[in-house]
Order: sequence, then C-alpha cells, then structure tokens
Amino acid sequence: MEHIYKKIELVGSSTTTIEDAVKNALERAAKTVHNLRWLEIVETRGQIEDGKLAYWQVTIKVGFTLDA
Amino acid sequence: MEHIYKKIELVGSSTTTIEDAVKNALERAAKTVHNLRWLEIVETRGQIEDGKLAYWQVTIKVGFTLDA
Amino acid sequence: MEHIYKKIELVGSSTTTIEDAVKNALERAAKTVHNLRWLEIVETRGQIEDGKLAYWQVTIKVGFTLDA
Amino acid sequence: MEHIYKKIELVGSSTTTIEDAVKNALERAAKTVHNLRWLEIVETRGQIEDGKLAYWQVTIKVGFTLDA
Amino acid sequence: MEHIYKKIELVGSSTTTIEDAVKNALERAAKTVHNLRWLEIVETRGQIEDGKLAYWQVTIKVGFTLDA
Amino acid sequence: MEHIYKKIELVGSSTTTIEDAVKNALERAAKTVHNLRWLEIVETRGQIEDGKLAYWQVTIKVGFTLDA
Amino acid sequence: MEHIYKKIELVGSSTTTIEDAVKNALERAAKTVHNLRWLEIVETRGQIEDGKLAYWQVTIKVGFTLDA
Amino acid sequence: MEHIYKKIELVGSSTTTIEDAVKNALERAAKTVHNLRWLEIVETRGQIEDGKLAYWQVTIKVGFTLDA
Amino acid sequence: MEHIYKKIELVGSSTTTIEDAVKNALERAAKTVHNLRWLEIVETRGQIEDGKLAYWQVTIKVGFTLDA
Amino acid sequence: MEHIYKKIELVGSSTTTIEDAVKNALERAAKTVHNLRWLEIVETRGQIEDGKLAYWQVTIKVGFTLDA
Amino acid sequence: MEHIYKKIELVGSSTTTIEDAVKNALERAAKTVHNLRWLEIVETRGQIEDGKLAYWQVTIKVGFTLDA
Amino acid sequence: MEHIYKKIELVGSSTTTIEDAVKNALERAAKTVHNLRWLEIVETRGQIEDGKLAYWQVTIKVGFTLDA
Repeated sequence: MEHIYKKIELVGSSTTTIEDAVKNALERAAKTVHNLRWLEIVETRGQIEDGKLAYWQVTIKVGFTLDA
Repeated sequence: MEHIYKKIELVGSSTTTIEDAVKNALERAAKTVHNLRWLEIVETRGQIEDGKLAYWQVTIKVGFTLDA
Repeated sequence: MEHIYKKIELVGSSTTTIEDAVKNALERAAKTVHNLRWLEIVETRGQIEDGKLAYWQVTIKVGFTLDA
Repeated sequence: MEHIYKKIELVGSSTTTIEDAVKNALERAAKTVHNLRWLEIVETRGQIEDGKLAYWQVTIKVGFTLDA
Repeated sequence: MEHIYKKIELVGSSTTTIEDAVKNALERAAKTVHNLRWLEIVETRGQIEDGKLAYWQVTIKVGFTLDA
Repeated sequence: MEHIYKKIELVGSSTTTIEDAVKNALERAAKTVHNLRWLEIVETRGQIEDGKLAYWQVTIKVGFTLDA
Repeated sequence: MEHIYKKIELVGSSTTTIEDAVKNALERAAKTVHNLRWLEIVETRGQIEDGKLAYWQVTIKVGFTLDA
Repeated sequence: MEHIYKKIELVGSSTTTIEDAVKNALERAAKTVHNLRWLEIVETRGQIEDGKLAYWQVTIKVGFTLDA
Repeated sequence: MEHIYKKIELVGSSTTTIEDAVKNALERAAKTVHNLRWLEIVETRGQIEDGKLAYWQVTIKVGFTLDA
Repeated sequence: MEHIYKKIELVGSSTTTIEDAVKNALERAAKTVHNLRWLEIVETRGQIEDGKLAYWQVTIKVGFTLDA
Repeated sequence: MEHIYKKIELVGSSTTTIEDAVKNALERAAKTVHNLRWLEIVETRGQIEDGKLAYWQVTIKVGFTLDA
Repeated sequence: MEHIYKKIELVGSSTTTIEDAVKNALERAAKTVHNLRWLEIVETRGQIEDGKLAYWQVTIKVGFTLDA
C-alpha cells in the first residue's frame, strides 16, 4: 500500500500500430527495470515517408515499484 | 439544432486495443443511457503485468442528448 | 539542416481504427502537399450511432518542408 | 459552509448568443436538478451553415449543492 | 480486469485541512454510490473571512466501478 | 462519414460583441473557402483606448471539408 | 516600441452579458490605472439563483504601459 | 453582486504543512489588503535540506474586493 | 551558480496526509540520490477502500545537483 | 481596427540562436505572405549531434492581415 | 526560510534578443520594487514590420520578497 | 526506424544566454549518456541579484537512444 514508484519517460516506435509502439518501449524497459506497473501515453506522433505513414512514435511514462 | 447535451466521463478497458477499450465503455453506457452522440478520448493508460501490457484503460467523455 | 517547415491541422475519419483515420487524412494531404515529414495527434473523437461507435475522427498536425 | 457540491458537464446551444446557449443549458438542468449554484464555461464552438454561423454550442460545468 | 468505471466531479469543504475536505466529499458520495475506487484532486481553493482562511474547498474526481 | 477536414486559425474583430467578432472572421473566410463546418473559440482579447474597450479580438479555429 | 507593460488580473461581473462584465472591470481599473492597453479573458463563470443565471463573473488580465 | 475583484499572486512558506504555508501568505496579505475573499492554490513546491523536506512553498492567487 | 540539476518523477504514498506521502517518497530517494534540492507536486490522488480514503498517492518531481 | 488576421504555424531552424531560427522562418514566410504582423513562440527544440547542440528548431505561429 | 513572496507579471521588449527584453523589464521593475528574486518566462512574442522581426515582447512573472 | 528513446529532465544554468544554459546541461549529460538525439525546452527561469539578472535556469527534456 505504501509503495514508492518511479516514473520514466520513453518513446517507442512501430511500423504497424500505436499499441505496438507502446509494447516495443515496454519490452525494452523490461530488460533493465523490474516491477513495471502502469503506463500513460503522453504524445503520439508519426514519421512520414513518400507521403505515407512510415512508423508511429509514441511517448509514454512508465511507473515501476522501487525496492524498499 | 438547439439540443442540450450532457457529457459523462467513463473509463473502459480491454486486453487488446485502445479502440476496443473505448467500445467496451460505450457498450456499458448504452445499457442505461440513450441517444449517445459522440465521445472524446481524455487519457490512455495501460496496466502492466510480468513486464507486459496486460490491458488498456482509456478515459473518455461521452455526450448524449437530453430529452427536452 | 536549416529547413523551414509548415504545419497544418487536419481531421481524418475512419470506421475502423484511429490509425486508419490518420492515414486517410495523410492520403488526402499528399494529393496537394509534397514533402510531408511528420504528424502529431492532437485530439481523438468518435461519432456514435445506435449506441455504437460509427467512426473515429482524429485531429492531427502535419509538418512538411517548405521549398526554399 | 461545509456544503458538498457536484459538478456536471452540459452543452447548450442557441442561434443568437453565447450567453443564451448557456441559459438554455441551465433551463434544462433546472428541470431535474435543484440548488444549482454556479457554472464555468469550458468550451465555445459554433456550427456553420451556408458560410454563416448557424448556432452556438457552449460547454459548461454546473455546480449544485448535494443534500446532506 | 475489464471493469468499466465512471468518474464524477465533487467539491468538498472543511474548516481544518485539505485532506478533510476530500474526506467529507467522499463520505457524502459513499451514501449513494458504491464501489468507489480512487480520486484525483482537481483544484484547491479556500474561502477567506475577516482576513483568515475560513474553509477549504477541494474539487475532486472520483472513480467507481459500474456494475456489469 | 469519412470526410477529411482542414482547420485554419483566424482572428476576427468587432467594436460591439464577441459573437460579432467571430462572425466577421467567418464572413471573410467564406469569401475564399467553401464548406465551412464549425468553429472553436481559442482566445478572446480586447484592445483598450482611452480607458474603454475599443474592439474585441477573437481567435478561432474554423473547420471545413476538403474536396475528395 | 520598447515599452514595458504590467498585467493585472481582475474579475468583473454583470447581470447582462459577458462583454458587460469585462467593461465593468475595465471601468473600475481606469479609475486608478492609466494607459490601459489590452485585455485577455482568462475565465468565464456565472452565479445561479433560483435556477437562473443571476450574474456573469469574468476574469481578465489587463495590460497597461508602465511610465519609464 | 456586481463587485469587482482583483487577484494577486503570493508564495507562502512553512516548515510544517501546505495549509500553514497558505495561511502565512494570507496573514501577510491581510496586513495591507482588506476584503480578502478567496484563494486558489497554483503550485506546491518544497525545499529539501539534508535529504529531508525543510519547508513548503505554496503559490496562491488571492482575490479581494476593490472599493467602488 | 552554474549548477546542473536533474529532475526525477516519483510517487509516494501515505495513509495519513499528502505531506507524509511526499516525505515517504523523499526518504526513499535520499537512499540512493544525494544533493536533493527541491520538489514540485505534480498530481494528488487517493485510493478508496470500503468507501473511505485508504491512502494518498502523490506524484512529485524532485531536483538534485549533478556532480560536475 | 476591424482587420481579420490569419495565423499559420511554421518551424524555423538555425545553428546559432533561438532568435535566428525564428528570423529564418519569418524570412521564408515573407516570400509568399504579405502583411506579417506578429509571431508567438510555441515550442523550442534542439537537435543534438555528437553530444553537442547542432541546430535549434523553433515552432512559431505567425499572424498576418487578410486583404478585405 | 519562511519568506513571503509576491509575483507580478510584466512584458518587456527589445529589438535585439529575448534575453534583452527580459532585462529591460527587470530594469524597470527594479526602480520601484526591491528584493527581486527570480523570474519565469511566460510567453514570447515578436512584432513584425516590413516582413522582419521589429522587436521581441516577452511576458515574465517576477517574484520578490515582501517585507515582514 | 524502430529505435526506443528515453527522455530525462535537466536544468542547466548560465550567466549569459538561454542557449548557453541549455548547452551547459547538454555538456554535462554527454559525460554519462551517449546517443543524445534531441532536446525540448520545458521552462525558462532567471535568478535575480541586486536587481539584475544573475543567471538563467533552463529546464529541458533530452532524448537519447537506448541500446537494443
């Protein structure tokens, strides 16, 4: 109940969907941070090439539990 | 033209997509409120379990017509 | 490096996904504007018919290079 | 002094003025809610037909006293 | 996991502390709404009488589970 | 349903009312843009001369349908 | 060109219109401050009595030239 | 009803609580300004010394009636 | 004077007060980060159990000096 | 007095200063738009190469008079 | 430690740089207010003449210590 | 294309310019973080001594590539 959390800000990208860009960022974070608990989407952008959306770039904040 | 609308704030969730979380909230709202007209996404969050996105939580405002 | 960009604001719609609504707006923009470079999602709304989401309406800002 | 208030969000419309759109929303609210106390304008939009403003749409939050 | 929540906006007041103003709003809400889950402080104001703070007025959003 | 809209930002002015400043901006826009659909008030300012309000300056965003 | 301005924040009220509430605040400010130059509307609220709008309360920022 | 108010921005501090920091700012304001009516908390900060919170710094806006 | 600071975002919790939730987050941060200098409250939430506030969750940004 | 203005959004860049990035955007705009009147800085970013700031990217809104 | 500060809002201008516009505002403020402590840039605008930036206008908030 | 970025928040200072304060923060960051890619200015403040600007304090977010 009285946990302390830290929040970090990441940008994930994906050629397919907004959801996939978020999951790619999470997957990378999970390599070095344990106890990931929740995320909040902060900003959604897309890079365009040849007049078409090339990939999504989604900025998220991710919260995780700090060990006591 | 001179309709009056009320807006309520809901949070829907889904294990699959942001769109599906919104639709789940709408489906629930439609059980008790008629004349739903539009929605606005206010916030998009995700709950994480075992380092992976477990489900999306999307906060929306939903507008509906008030009977005269 | 010292490019000048212009940003315009568009609203795209789609009966399927948020991503598709963005792509529809881009496709229309690419007909008259060249050198589209990036986009930012500004607002996501949905129109509701018969208690179900009928189509998404996504407002984006799109940046493109101005010819020197 | 220690009253508890609830705030609801409404959209009123009028073909004439912003003030009138607000009053139309209040008039409708007063049919079912007592003890309305104050309002805050949240957003002001207008619908356009044939190149002219057809009607104002004003979103307000209205606060009212909850019975103890 | 796939719960749907509704959020309502309340203003609580107290002559003592900000925390107490929030608790007074919750206590009132709990009389008619079950399954209250969380709150977010939106705004904190104070009314002043004779040059001293007379009571706090704290606006909160409260989320609760909608029955399926 | 799957229309694409463009939004432009204008500032209209009037010596009389906020509503009139908006209408003046719309009237000018309608000369060169067809299919105006809606507007959103972004900012309301006033210029003061001799201690009195001389004219209102209202910034709006106007949305219009792009031909396919 | 290189004037320095100060901005102060006022709340004006009126039983009739938003514009009139602003003018009442300006009229009061002009009694003690010279060289008023512009204003920006910050917030528009209304007080309600007996289910009807009793008076508008409009918060403005007013800019004026500081003497060198 | 048609009062005009002025709002000023103050920062109060206290080694004990957020509420006390606000009261300290009010106490100072009341020495030179009469008719203080309400306050709004704008920002809450804390200064840290030796790894512990040393004192709170709370920015408020205070509204008071202007004499006619 | 020309120090460089880093800011991190933490969420502290407490069953008693908002101030205590902040102090719990600071206490945890001080275990691994030296030279903590100031904090800013970003968001205040509460978790509710059995219709009563169970604990406060306060999000803060904490600034600390980076060694040269 | 009753001019109508249009605002467009541009991004200028410069390897030297923020002011220069703005001037570069203005210089480009002045090639095709007459009667430029004012600008507002919306966002300031920098691109980094080899650990050093390579160039500034400043987003501005520029207002200009529309011919009657 | 338990100082009380007041914040005022000023607009400074300069034909050269953003920094210079801030300093011009400070220089003017220092003529009548003692104990200026810090400033925050709120908004940066520029006036344009003949297609070129004529002068910067920078809005700042300035904090100063109130005598006890 | 599918890079993942992390963003950190820093405050740099300088007695000369806003640009220099940013560069000082970058220089410090580059000592421990590789692959810095871009920055965004979040807030610009100044400390005042003897009525004059003593040094600028600029808060930035800096994005850098996370190794896969």
